[in-house]
Amino acid sequence: MREALIANRPIDKLFLLKDAHGLSDIRQLARESGIPVVECDRARLNAMSQTSAHQGVIAAGAAHAWSEMDDIWQKAGQSGQPPLVVVCDGVEDPRNLGAIVRTAECAGAHGVIVSKRRSAGLTGSLAKAAAGALEHIPVVRVPNIPALLKELKERGLWVYGAECNEGAKPLGEVDFSGGAALVLGGEGEGLGRLVKENCDVLVRIPMYGKTQSLNVSTACGVILWTIKS
Amino acid sequence: MREALIANRPIDKLFLLKDAHGLSDIRQLARESGIPVVECDRARLNAMSQTSAHQGVIAAGAAHAWSEMDDIWQKAGQSGQPPLVVVCDGVEDPRNLGAIVRTAECAGAHGVIVSKRRSAGLTGSLAKAAAGALEHIPVVRVPNIPALLKELKERGLWVYGAECNEGAKPLGEVDFSGGAALVLGGEGEGLGRLVKENCDVLVRIPMYGKTQSLNVSTACGVILWTIKS
Repeated sequence: MREALIANRPIDKLFLLKDAHGLSDIRQLARESGIPVVECDRARLNAMSQTSAHQGVIAAGAAHAWSEMDDIWQKAGQSGQPPLVVVCDGVEDPRNLGAIVRTAECAGAHGVIVSKRRSAGLTGSLAKAAAGALEHIPVVRVPNIPALLKELKERGLWVYGAECNEGAKPLGEVDFSGGAALVLGGEGEGLGRLVKENCDVLVRIPMYGKTQSLNVSTACGVILWTIKS
Repeated sequence: MREALIANRPIDKLFLLKDAHGLSDIRQLARESGIPVVECDRARLNAMSQTSAHQGVIAAGAAHAWSEMDDIWQKAGQSGQPPLVVVCDGVEDPRNLGAIVRTAECAGAHGVIVSKRRSAGLTGSLAKAAAGALEHIPVVRVPNIPALLKELKERGLWVYGAECNEGAKPLGEVDFSGGAALVLGGEGEGLGRLVKENCDVLVRIPMYGKTQSLNVSTACGVILWTIKS
């Protein structure tokens, strides 16, 4: 465990036995690496462990390492295309986030950016839904989405927030030329107020039925191919 | 159980205890209703049953009843729009099929048609992924997809098969005016040969990344909004 932490292996979360002795260095290493630590009792650790031989600490591993913002700009630069990124503000279902990663990669996006606090980790079920796309597109997490959107605008990208309500502009009326960031909200709540305020344009997919909204990864696909067409 | 069968409650499949006495009338009712019967031993039935009080028969219930083709034509007629249907040739994952039903309803399609033999049932997990859309769009199952496509063409619909390979026409080059049927293949194999032969046009979504294909429900959304735009 210490070795994994020192080697910077992708770990999403650490579960530590409450009041355990001899684990303070692990707690310290986790803090230095910015890995959230959850204290829990032996019963919970036993339930999580497949072998019960957990020695008081269990790491929730990641199937893939997070990338850095620079990886996105590098990929965009190499493509010779205007930058295209997808920003997820609180997509918590790993299958949805995995499907978004897959969709973004297929659409030629240069990166997916998620919120550090309110997002699924790069787990096995996310990797499965991503169908290999994790190998080809950087996925980055940032502490603050509104601050990220400001940064994207400073880099010259147009920030499009996907909304369901009538106030947003229908997809067909939006000019998507140039670099673009598509911001998607979480499954339940959509975009937060501060996030919306930092979008250049709120766009909506015209809806022709009675169901209120599309699945977030389907919405992502419909908008990305409209941008590309 | 007899009552459920007599009342025509939506049942997808019946599991019967092998060599059980006193169940022949149920077997007969199932046959008359066209419900597939699977014979199995007591261990398997016990494992499936939540209470072990199964009396030798377990029904795999459906969350929703299947509709009839006439429901689709009626809905299309009332809409004043050219008919738009989605045909699934072997989408077996209930979450995928549920997401397709949701996407089709949001796009204003008039029905979803699935293959009787190779399709997920209208189960709870499908209903959950459909997010209420099952209440607003008819879902019909047919024994034979190639025969269905012939029937759709006789009704004046154009049949578009979604394909991944280069031989198919890119979405942007296809004229989608008039009534349309979009045919989607299963998760692994895509469209069968006979199905392809009965399509008027094979269309493909232009792909800009390294991942081979989109999730089938995302592909459905991208194509349907291209048709609507």
